[in-house]
Order: sequence, then structure tokens, then C-alpha cells
Amino acid sequence: MTQRTEALKGTITPEMEEAARHEGIDPEVVRAGVAGGTIAIPKNAGKSLPQVRGVGKGLKTKINANIGSSPYHMDMAEEVEKLHAAVGSGADAVMDLSLGSEIIEIRREIIRQSPVMVGTVPIYQTAFELSSERRGITDMTIDDFLKTVRNQAEEGVDFMTIHSGVTLQSLSALEGQGRILDVVSRGGSFLVSWMKKNRRQSPLFEFYDEILDILAAHDVTISLGDGMRPGATADATDRAQITELVILGELAQRAWDKGVQVIIEGPGHVPLNMVEENIRLQKSLCQGAPFYVLGPLVTDCAAGHDHIAGAIGGALAAFFGADFLCYVTPAEHLRLPTVEHVVEGVMASKIAAHAADLAKGMQYARDREEAMARARKALDWEAQMSCCLDPDKARRLRESSEIGRDDVCTMCGEFCAIKCLQEVL
Amino acid sequence: MTQRTEALKGTITPEMEEAARHEGIDPEVVRAGVAGGTIAIPKNAGKSLPQVRGVGKGLKTKINANIGSSPYHMDMAEEVEKLHAAVGSGADAVMDLSLGSEIIEIRREIIRQSPVMVGTVPIYQTAFELSSERRGITDMTIDDFLKTVRNQAEEGVDFMTIHSGVTLQSLSALEGQGRILDVVSRGGSFLVSWMKKNRRQSPLFEFYDEILDILAAHDVTISLGDGMRPGATADATDRAQITELVILGELAQRAWDKGVQVIIEGPGHVPLNMVEENIRLQKSLCQGAPFYVLGPLVTDCAAGHDHIAGAIGGALAAFFGADFLCYVTPAEHLRLPTVEHVVEGVMASKIAAHAADLAKGMQYARDREEAMARARKALDWEAQMSCCLDPDKARRLRESSEIGRDDVCTMCGEFCAIKCLQEVL
Repeated sequence: MTQRTEALKGTITPEMEEAARHEGIDPEVVRAGVAGGTIAIPKNAGKSLPQVRGVGKGLKTKINANIGSSPYHMDMAEEVEKLHAAVGSGADAVMDLSLGSEIIEIRREIIRQSPVMVGTVPIYQTAFELSSERRGITDMTIDDFLKTVRNQAEEGVDFMTIHSGVTLQSLSALEGQGRILDVVSRGGSFLVSWMKKNRRQSPLFEFYDEILDILAAHDVTISLGDGMRPGATADATDRAQITELVILGELAQRAWDKGVQVIIEGPGHVPLNMVEENIRLQKSLCQGAPFYVLGPLVTDCAAGHDHIAGAIGGALAAFFGADFLCYVTPAEHLRLPTVEHVVEGVMASKIAAHAADLAKGMQYARDREEAMARARKALDWEAQMSCCLDPDKARRLRESSEIGRDDVCTMCGEFCAIKCLQEVL
Repeated sequence: MTQRTEALKGTITPEMEEAARHEGIDPEVVRAGVAGGTIAIPKNAGKSLPQVRGVGKGLKTKINANIGSSPYHMDMAEEVEKLHAAVGSGADAVMDLSLGSEIIEIRREIIRQSPVMVGTVPIYQTAFELSSERRGITDMTIDDFLKTVRNQAEEGVDFMTIHSGVTLQSLSALEGQGRILDVVSRGGSFLVSWMKKNRRQSPLFEFYDEILDILAAHDVTISLGDGMRPGATADATDRAQITELVILGELAQRAWDKGVQVIIEGPGHVPLNMVEENIRLQKSLCQGAPFYVLGPLVTDCAAGHDHIAGAIGGALAAFFGADFLCYVTPAEHLRLPTVEHVVEGVMASKIAAHAADLAKGMQYARDREEAMARARKALDWEAQMSCCLDPDKARRLRESSEIGRDDVCTMCGEFCAIKCLQEVL
């Protein structure tokens, strides 16, 4: 019994009702979306979740924050702090991408404390455990992988990134293409290594049905990973990426046929003139499945400010139909993010998501814009702050100026255009 | 003798050569653009300028940083520091928007020290001087205004924002429209007040020829201000804005006829679905004149992070043909920016400009992306830093992590996808 199988039977579940309430729409719209595959409600059947959210067509654009330790930096308290910082800033989901010795403990704690859906990339744990046993990822068996998926499903993970589209076929497209930056997906690189070493098909493709059976049993949503995503704008929208996307479309159908909810992952590094076609291609090749994009980053050269490059790409992507934005922090390409970077990343994604929803004409976004415009007209600073996507930072900036209790700001002072015209118009 | 009159005679001036050298293009292309009005080279004829730049069609997208004091915060040293911080971060132009008691001294110092073009909004000085004499802006005579324009032209200002499109006609469109936020342009609000009080046509429109004569004598580029720009996304692309834009097209032609170079200013607050039409309309109504946009901000609700909202709008605008991006800082709508805000604003605009130039296929941007991709492939961190738009911040972030001298980063450590595949592919 999954949200999908219930939706196909015509049942509106409590989760669909909760997701619909958050959107301010009819639960039947959510049910129909889940049945049609255009909406997913990632929530593990074995646990409760305070904030149940739908991801997909007609819904508010959602935001994910990646958190988790690295082999260089392992601090459970800090990862929990990142979780709460991300959720407090407006993240609709977190992914725990931990690597390192406390991988299991951190995930359990994040699942326990998170009010929002939690995603993972199970092959990270498999790879880490193999390396602890002094085996390489190329020694992985399907049983090693299925064991991790089963453990994580039983622990309550809501969605899992699984790179079953990294196959001999997409690898052949990659090698024929001659990319500058080959594979930048960790999971993708593991599977490419595996196939090159073992000279056969990826077990995540070969035993895809077995993976799906575990996911279906716990209603874990599969997030079909894009191991072939471009890691450089020069490599965007090439044969490797699109070959994998065609395969992801087939895999989505197979997941749906087994009652598993599906999200498709997308790039990556994409010049802004290619963002629209990337979204349209995904929607077409994957029959409207929810699209989850990493950024996209519209330039490779913004390290230190990649949250801005990601906000540009994310706003455009969401406008053209991407449903779920994975944030990018200022630390991307440079280091594991700090708590502050997490907050900056979520804020940049929130701006992108809100701007896209406004451009799509969504009423909630229009209402907020109008409330802000009216607050500005009235020089009502408290009302302005409450309309801000980041009221804390806005308040801090205003209070750090010499303004005191005046009704203008230190940019124009008495020459404030709005104040100037209050009497005239 | 202006760049425009020379271009029309077929002469390639040293300024055109310098502008062409910066772009890596044939000076004849620049000359033809200046003659056709699609390129401006803002540079006061009465002074030398270390960095002469063209703004317009076929050229790299340029960035302006607004600096200047306010009545609440007057510190000459800090404004000079902002100038150097902006230029050091990559600004191609600065505008001194000072208000307050040291308005003249600050402008002179900025002109003296700036290696890049300097713009002003002369009506600010007129308004401030009137207020010092206890006269209001509605008491302004055309002679008050012409005196300021003449003084600033003689001092070496390279381009001036003049709101001659704020007329009885555009005011009537504004009043008929019933906007939420009326006028948010300082200059626009002054002229609306003037017309309402004096019940006649704006002197900046009525005596436009006299203004042009002064600008032509010093080759000051006119930046036709958009006093009716929307200050709220709900007000975007309305009758007031477009009525003014039609007038700006006529005023551009009149300026060109007098040998004056022209830039057109544009919004403002614009939802992202309207950015393309805003650029196309301007290009069409203003016969291809260079377009200088303020942002645009794709949401009203990003105060504290408006540089990000502006980068989203700016990247899109530049991709569709805007030539010149006025930065927005994180302090916008809240306070006068600090030096740090200035740097953040310039960086966000640089990312937007670079992303747009890449998307337009400009070779310089493609070369930088490819160099970064190759540096990443080689895990060559020094080369990566040199490709960054903000190498200082990128270096700071990497060095703040636990990485030491390792060739990976603390995000993935030994599980680095690029490292993992170095031996395999």
C-alpha cells in the first residue's frame, strides 16, 4: 500500500489531505496528480511526519537542503543544527548525504528530529561500509546494496536517490561524447567504476525490480539520480545526459507499475539558454514526473557565490516546470557547507522558488507581493518585515543603520520618493 | 564633437579603439554601433579616463555600482572606499547618487579617483541645493537644473540620468492606471511633485533641447531615466511605464539628432515572465539604443538578499538583450549599503552578466567556462581559483576548511567523483 496505489484506487489518504491543505487546493487534485504520476508525496509508510508535502505539477515549488558530514568533518551536533537551520529557513526537505564513520548515527538522528521529508543516497553508505572492510566500490554486490536500501527504508527514509540510469548504454554515450568533465555525480562515478572494472551491466539497473520491491513495501519514493549530469556548462545537454534521461523515463514507468512514487533528478551545470529545453525534455521523456534539479548552475565560475548561480538557474527551471529545487550553497565546489552556508543556500532557493511561482501566476506568491507593495506604500516597516522571505536578515540590516525610529530609510532619507508623493498623489 | 558625431563622419576615435580592444573586436564594429546608436561610449570629452568602455549591442554586458552618501550617512572616505571596492570587484561604471551636505566634494573626489566612467543624477544636487535654501523641489526653475547639469558636465561626469520622460502624459497614464506603489524613482517623484504643484509640463521635457546642448558640448551621454519604473511586481509593464518608454524613444532620437549619445534606463520590479517582453519592447521602441536595467528584481520580497533577486532578473534581461546592469545590493530597500554590500552587489551582477554572455555564446565567457572545467578535471585548485569570478572569496572558503594540502575538498573527500574516475576513464 503506497500513496500511489491508494490514489489509483481513488482513495484520498490523510497524507494527500495534508499536502493539499498546505497548498490551499482540493485534495482530489492531489490524488489525481499522485495517480497520474505528476505528483509525489515522499513519506515513508512506517513513520509519521509533521510536515507532509507534495512535490509536482500545480503545487508550490519545493526546496531541498543537502546536509551531512564528510570524512573530513564529522560532527553530529552540527549536522542536527544544519537540519534545524534549513527547516527554520524554509526547506521543505533535507537530504542527508553523510559520508564517514558516524554515517548511520547521523542519519538516524536526522530522521528522528526532522519535521520534513528526509532523503538519502544509499550507495554512499554501501561505499563507505565497503571501504571500512577494505573492499572497493567495484566489489559491491547487489546484496550489499539491497541491504542498505532495506535498512534505510526500515529506519524511515522518505525518498532515496538511486542511479539506475547509469548503465552500459549511458556510459557508452559518455565515452563516445568525449566530455570535458566526465562524471561529477558521486553515485554516478561509483557505478561507472563498477561497470568498467566488472565489465558488465550495473547491478542497480539489472536488479532494479528488487530495489523497487523494497521501496514499494515502505512507500519510499524513488528519486531517479542523474549520474550523467553535466558538471560543466560546456558538457550540458549532451548525448550522455540525454541517453540517461531516456532511460530514466523507462525506469519511472517501471516504478509506477510497481506502485512506487517517482521523482526524476536533473542537472547540474546548464547555461541559461538551455534551461527551458532541459525542463521540457524531462517532462516529455518522463511523462510529467516531478523534476528535481540541482541548481541548475548557469555558470561554472561562481564558486563562493554558487547559491546565486543556482538561484538564477533554479528560478528559470521552476518557471519552466521544475517542481523541486535542490539548493546550492556558497561553499559548493569548495568545502562542506557550514550552518551559515546552509541558511544562505535555502534563502537563495526560496527566492528562486517564489519568483518562479509568481511568474507562473500562483496566487499565494501574488498575494505576498501585493502585501509587500502595500506595506512599502504605507512605509509600514513591521508589515514589510513580515512580507520578507528572510525577515531576520532584513530587520538586522535596517537596525544596523542610523535610522532610529524614522519612517524612511538611510538610502534616501527625507528625499524618499514614496514619502515625497504621499501628499501629492 | 562627440563620439557620435565622429562616428557619423566615419572617424574611429581613440576611445572607440580602446573600447574595441577591451572587447577583442574590430574598432570599426564599435564605430558603426556608435553611429547607429546601438553603442554608447560614456566618457566626458573634457577628461581622460583609464578604462574606456562601450555599452551596447554585441559588447560584453557591463555593470554599474551605485555609490554615494545619504543625508543620514556622510563619509567621504567611505564613499571613496566603495568606489575602489566596486572597481576592484569588476564594476565597469559607478554612479554617485550622493545626497547631503558634502554632495559636491564627494562627487569631485569620485571623478578624480575613478578609473571607470562616472554617472550622476543631477536633479539630486538641484533638489538638495534648493532644500538648503529652504526652497522645495517644486520651486525648481529650468535655470536651477541647467546650472547643475553645466557644473557637473564641466567637472567631468561621463553620463547623467535625466528623467525627461516624466511628463504630463506619462503622469496622466500613471494616475489613470491606479498603481499600488505609484512612483519609486527619486527623480521621478520630484518631477511628479513639480508638475502637480505647478500644473504645467515638466521643465526637463519642455527645455530638453537646452539640456542636450550642454551634454553635446561635453559629450556627456544621456541616460534617459525611467521615473515611472514599477516599484512592485504587481505594477510591472503597465500603462505608466510603457507610456514613458514611448516618450523615451522619441527623446533618444532627439538626442541623437544633436550628436548626444544615449542610454535608456529600465525597470525595476518585474516578474520573470515579463523580463523578455520588457527588453524587446525597449529595443523596438528605442531603435536599439543601449538598455540599462536596474535589476530587474523578480520579486518584491527578497529584502536582505535583493542582490540575488536582481541577479536572477539581470541574467535574464542581459540574455534577452539588456546591455548594462545596475547592481542591487543586499541592503536595497533597507539602508544605504556598506562597502561589503557594494562588493556583494557587484559580484552578483558579474555572475548575472557572465551567465548571460555565456548563454549568448560570447567567446570570452565560453573560454572561461572551459578553462574552469579543465581545472576541475585536473583537480588543479590554483587554476580553479584563477577562473573564479571572485577568487578571493573562493580561496577564503576553501582555506577555512580542514583540507590542508589535499587535492580534493571536504565535501566528498576520498569519495570525490573526479578523483574516483581519474584512473578509470
